[in-house]
Amino acid sequence: MNSFNSNLKSKIKKNKSCLCVGLDISLESIGSKKISTLKEHTFDVIDATRDLAVAYKPNFAFFERWGAAGFAWLEETVEYIGSNHIKIADAKRGDIGNTARQYAQSVFEHFNFDAVTLNPYMGEDGILPFLNVENKGVFILCRTSNPSAIHLQGKLNDTNPIFKKVAIMANKLNDKGNIGLVVGATAIDELRIIKDIAPDLSLLIPGVGAQGGNLEQSVKIGNSTSSALINISRDINFAGNLSQKSIRKSAKNYVNKMKSFLNDK
Amino acid sequence: MNSFNSNLKSKIKKNKSCLCVGLDISLESIGSKKISTLKEHTFDVIDATRDLAVAYKPNFAFFERWGAAGFAWLEETVEYIGSNHIKIADAKRGDIGNTARQYAQSVFEHFNFDAVTLNPYMGEDGILPFLNVENKGVFILCRTSNPSAIHLQGKLNDTNPIFKKVAIMANKLNDKGNIGLVVGATAIDELRIIKDIAPDLSLLIPGVGAQGGNLEQSVKIGNSTSSALINISRDINFAGNLSQKSIRKSAKNYVNKMKSFLNDK
Repeated sequence: MNSFNSNLKSKIKKNKSCLCVGLDISLESIGSKKISTLKEHTFDVIDATRDLAVAYKPNFAFFERWGAAGFAWLEETVEYIGSNHIKIADAKRGDIGNTARQYAQSVFEHFNFDAVTLNPYMGEDGILPFLNVENKGVFILCRTSNPSAIHLQGKLNDTNPIFKKVAIMANKLNDKGNIGLVVGATAIDELRIIKDIAPDLSLLIPGVGAQGGNLEQSVKIGNSTSSALINISRDINFAGNLSQKSIRKSAKNYVNKMKSFLNDK
Repeated sequence: MNSFNSNLKSKIKKNKSCLCVGLDISLESIGSKKISTLKEHTFDVIDATRDLAVAYKPNFAFFERWGAAGFAWLEETVEYIGSNHIKIADAKRGDIGNTARQYAQSVFEHFNFDAVTLNPYMGEDGILPFLNVENKGVFILCRTSNPSAIHLQGKLNDTNPIFKKVAIMANKLNDKGNIGLVVGATAIDELRIIKDIAPDLSLLIPGVGAQGGNLEQSVKIGNSTSSALINISRDINFAGNLSQKSIRKSAKNYVNKMKSFLNDK
């Protein structure tokens, strides 16, 4: 069985794309409260990007908001994506071991995701239950893309910022080659430091697009020693007039840039 | 409209109990894969403890594990609890503002919880969207009860441990009186320090029972300047032969101790 990180590397190489499409479809952006309409748009995004994306990343919040009906939509979405793409549960879960085991069952067994995003605040107890199977991966929040990330995660010049501790901890746990880190495209200097600490870990890089992060640096530094997925959500989900054509055009534009940066690195 | 923290204080005073019953009902503990059986047991736990508990805290992981069917069970559970108890969504969510708003809609609007547990790793961006309504509260993870909590949250003698930074940040955001902290009963010395930093914040204290935390100190210190809920999950959910009688006996035993410690403090 190949490890999650090695599967990811092969897919990026084969597709000459490191695009991860985040699926964050909200009432506010689509202007409809009907789950059938939200679902239709989700499937439009998937259909318009199948040959461009390497991974899809449904964000649980946008489904949970509708309770059981939202989770049914999530179940259908995972099935609709199928088995040719890496499916990442953007759930940012983090809890004590006993509870983490239930979350691992949820994302890997029930929903059949290939990977999940995790929050490291509770230390390794909350991470270990997700690492049992080598082709199922985790992306641990390290340095996030949002403005208040530095409150707790720390700044570049701090003596021992938490984001470095997370990178060190994650690196130590990577026996099976199934750990990655989440590092925002809005924090390129931190990305460099994290790559030095943990060169073999995969990366999931959000923050390009609506959040204004640096695509070129993210692709080049991210893919220098290991593999990095670049996540785009809003700029693809809600491109232009929301048609498949607009969505595809935006995704294609990103992938063309990624290709040139990947060749260039 | 009263604030969440003042509502909690009144309830604890009126009931002479600070018992929060955590609802963590799993296949592994009940020995059944049928959601109808898990649901029946959940309702048994609620029925057996209605006059003893001040709050119920369903842990989302145990419901999410079953996908849409599990969320339907969660919806029914919230309804079954009704409006005489404080209902806490133990979801430990934490994400950027755009996503946090969806999670806030989920727990407060869709599921109709009174409060939610949050993870502070992303800083205040992930917390602010939950604070809009003063009678809806949050409990922010500060010093958790699990063995690896110290990896990132820091130790007592560290110069500037993260758990202190979280307490300071939470204290600053408490304009509406709707913020509490999660502090494990396994970390009584840290609890004292946190009370000094943020004497007005409510507390949610897990870690008594299966995890071995100190009940007496948790009740007394926790309720010294503000109000503290003591959460018990496994010791009540799976008491004795799993009958309502056994469950009630265990809960009653905890509440009797709480009463004496509350009088004593």
